[in-house]
Amino acid sequence: MKELRGKDILSSFDFDRETLEHLFEEAETLRKKLSTTHLKIADSKTMATVFLEPSTRTKMSFQMAMLKLGGSVIDFQPESSSLQKGESDLDTMKIIDGYSPDIIVLRQSKPFFPHSIKEEIAAPIINGGDGTNEHPTQALLDVYTIWRELKRVDGLRLGIMGDLKYGRTAPSLSYMLTFFKDVKIYYIAPKELRLREEVKEKIRNKISFVEVERLEDIEEELDALYVTRLQKERFKDPSEYERLKSSYVVNLEALNKLKRIPIIMHPLPRVWELPQEVDSLPQAKYFEQAKNGMYVRAALIKEILGI
Amino acid sequence: MKELRGKDILSSFDFDRETLEHLFEEAETLRKKLSTTHLKIADSKTMATVFLEPSTRTKMSFQMAMLKLGGSVIDFQPESSSLQKGESDLDTMKIIDGYSPDIIVLRQSKPFFPHSIKEEIAAPIINGGDGTNEHPTQALLDVYTIWRELKRVDGLRLGIMGDLKYGRTAPSLSYMLTFFKDVKIYYIAPKELRLREEVKEKIRNKISFVEVERLEDIEEELDALYVTRLQKERFKDPSEYERLKSSYVVNLEALNKLKRIPIIMHPLPRVWELPQEVDSLPQAKYFEQAKNGMYVRAALIKEILGI
Amino acid sequence: MKELRGKDILSSFDFDRETLEHLFEEAETLRKKLSTTHLKIADSKTMATVFLEPSTRTKMSFQMAMLKLGGSVIDFQPESSSLQKGESDLDTMKIIDGYSPDIIVLRQSKPFFPHSIKEEIAAPIINGGDGTNEHPTQALLDVYTIWRELKRVDGLRLGIMGDLKYGRTAPSLSYMLTFFKDVKIYYIAPKELRLREEVKEKIRNKISFVEVERLEDIEEELDALYVTRLQKERFKDPSEYERLKSSYVVNLEALNKLKRIPIIMHPLPRVWELPQEVDSLPQAKYFEQAKNGMYVRAALIKEILGI
Repeated sequence: MKELRGKDILSSFDFDRETLEHLFEEAETLRKKLSTTHLKIADSKTMATVFLEPSTRTKMSFQMAMLKLGGSVIDFQPESSSLQKGESDLDTMKIIDGYSPDIIVLRQSKPFFPHSIKEEIAAPIINGGDGTNEHPTQALLDVYTIWRELKRVDGLRLGIMGDLKYGRTAPSLSYMLTFFKDVKIYYIAPKELRLREEVKEKIRNKISFVEVERLEDIEEELDALYVTRLQKERFKDPSEYERLKSSYVVNLEALNKLKRIPIIMHPLPRVWELPQEVDSLPQAKYFEQAKNGMYVRAALIKEILGI
Repeated sequence: MKELRGKDILSSFDFDRETLEHLFEEAETLRKKLSTTHLKIADSKTMATVFLEPSTRTKMSFQMAMLKLGGSVIDFQPESSSLQKGESDLDTMKIIDGYSPDIIVLRQSKPFFPHSIKEEIAAPIINGGDGTNEHPTQALLDVYTIWRELKRVDGLRLGIMGDLKYGRTAPSLSYMLTFFKDVKIYYIAPKELRLREEVKEKIRNKISFVEVERLEDIEEELDALYVTRLQKERFKDPSEYERLKSSYVVNLEALNKLKRIPIIMHPLPRVWELPQEVDSLPQAKYFEQAKNGMYVRAALIKEILGI
Repeated sequence: MKELRGKDILSSFDFDRETLEHLFEEAETLRKKLSTTHLKIADSKTMATVFLEPSTRTKMSFQMAMLKLGGSVIDFQPESSSLQKGESDLDTMKIIDGYSPDIIVLRQSKPFFPHSIKEEIAAPIINGGDGTNEHPTQALLDVYTIWRELKRVDGLRLGIMGDLKYGRTAPSLSYMLTFFKDVKIYYIAPKELRLREEVKEKIRNKISFVEVERLEDIEEELDALYVTRLQKERFKDPSEYERLKSSYVVNLEALNKLKRIPIIMHPLPRVWELPQEVDSLPQAKYFEQAKNGMYVRAALIKEILGI
């Protein structure tokens, strides 16, 4: 198992199977306690949340996890800060680091930004999303959700659907699944939004994967379907977007065409691609998935702080 | 007395007279303690504040009350959240609820929004304002202020002045006063900004009320005058606004025309309708009223959390 | 020594030499503890931060100091508040004060605004910047940094460079240095951005100072060089800005022209006037300076709260 105490978490590859399983078990223990009370184990620790791009779930679930562990939270607010005066993000991070937070959760739009500054920052950094590159704790809660719902990850048949080119959840999730055996992923995306070659490079020979254009192209029964948003602004040709849109709506009609309805996941926020009519299906797990995020992040915080 | 533990507070009608008097007594006890120190009674509890419209008083006084009770506060910030990505307010609320806050204070612009989602939310919701409909904890601090200042609520002669059509304080305050005996309200408003019929429906036969157009139309001595803002944008015809404006300024001149100056209340923020020259009158109670908000909200939190 | 318990800190002149030295010693003691843990000495106290203008360092370092002392923090956010509805800053402050915070840190754009309202506010106010007038806790961390780095303040030879007319750090720092012996300041600024006459009035006969136009005009060896931003919008004639700009860049070339490189300070944020190439010099102390801010502000909070 990897020692996480004091470590940065910048990529899904910063974990391994044993570490993940340990975190999931820990998350199970913590959820029993934290759903009704607070612990005091982090009461001498402070987390700084530095979100230079919008966030609901990631920021709030980290903050809530920290508060429920008994710790303190300080939030850096870019809209009312000296970033407005032209300060560089590195300077901002060095300043915050100088105040000795015990952990920094950072979201920044530039891929590999946290990697590029980590040597100058003393506090452990958790990458809360670096542009199109990675979002390792999203993967953590995704895999935790699969593990909870299916009681296993090995042998998983997973569909990942939507914008796989610019989204960071598909890469991070795929990387994390390389730690498990006999995983097969179907990537469902329009041709122009397929997984980037650099991402495929990192998973090739570790998991098997197939790229298809539509959900109905998958002949196997899926264990889980992971839906993501498809943003209009990603298409050069708007008519192409209108043409493809209907193929990427996961509604009851689309699901009923499958042999078996898999559990349905989504990193959220959702817009039109996952209509509310799906919410009442027993397979709809996306709100549970978001909830799982708080518990598995609490487990991660606990390990990094060594408490 | 109503049991408030774990309950939503969406309307003034969620209270009754005995419950209100209990909360006011509790607020008196808490103000002795909380003005100089913190308690630890909420130290395993978290409040989420979700204000989807601007607020100073309501949000800060709830947060401050929670901190002084020893609890934790987490604030959802719409301007840096996934609402920017088109997420629905219901989805946002379900996500936040999934993090197991012990109480959610919600402000949203749509009337009856909290009522429409309450079945899907496990945490108790306090309605911090739902558009033009209600703002029950504003009424709570309003009635608490009257109770403190006059030593009684029964027999009250109250003037409520300003925009009674679109404001939510007049309805919530009126509803709450139905629990008391022999209350008479003078509604002072231009014809186009009178109380909505649906509001009058709910108070008819419970309190007596008279609708007048100007303060000078009231011949009785008032115990209290409750002033609210009159917003220009509410008038179809701007010249109508200019014509009426001067009749809705509660300045020293206007007050001196009354037989007796009543205590003066205002939910704040004020703009031109209540000039600073009134602040030094002993009857000016609006800052005290705002302050009372923190203590009576602390009492409410205590009851809902059952601590 | 001045008693600071319950006192407002509005100006550098609210301190004296003995008080400063006491705070610096206290900051040394606190930094040993707070860099790795939290204390509980402020656990029944709340700080309200009211920043009506953007801030990173001042707000976050005050908040972090308070949290590390065990206290609670409540932040007033102007962008989502009733200021949007036209409320006056005085009304906002009276409301916040009514919630009984133990300390208020206030930044407002109008010079002497905190002085003008202090009689109406019960809580001790720390001036976190009042427009172009003062920023006394910035001076506090500046002088603390000099004291730490040089082991003395008496006999200091200091250069202060940049926009000395509109900046508030130069005045506050200069005022604070009047408490020490044999201090000499070189003010380095273009003619149109020289120190205001009213500022010179307050330091004349207390410290010696010389006004020069360029760094190379100083013939003496400096102990410390304090660099500040030079903003384009301050110049009536943009071509004048372009002409002068290069003389106010403190890069390696400029520093190497000096007989001896002094310690380099900057209140931050920096833009072009202090390029990153300087960061690796042992004399570059600006990040250390920002860090010092948290500890000396913790010491100040401790004194004001009397804990």
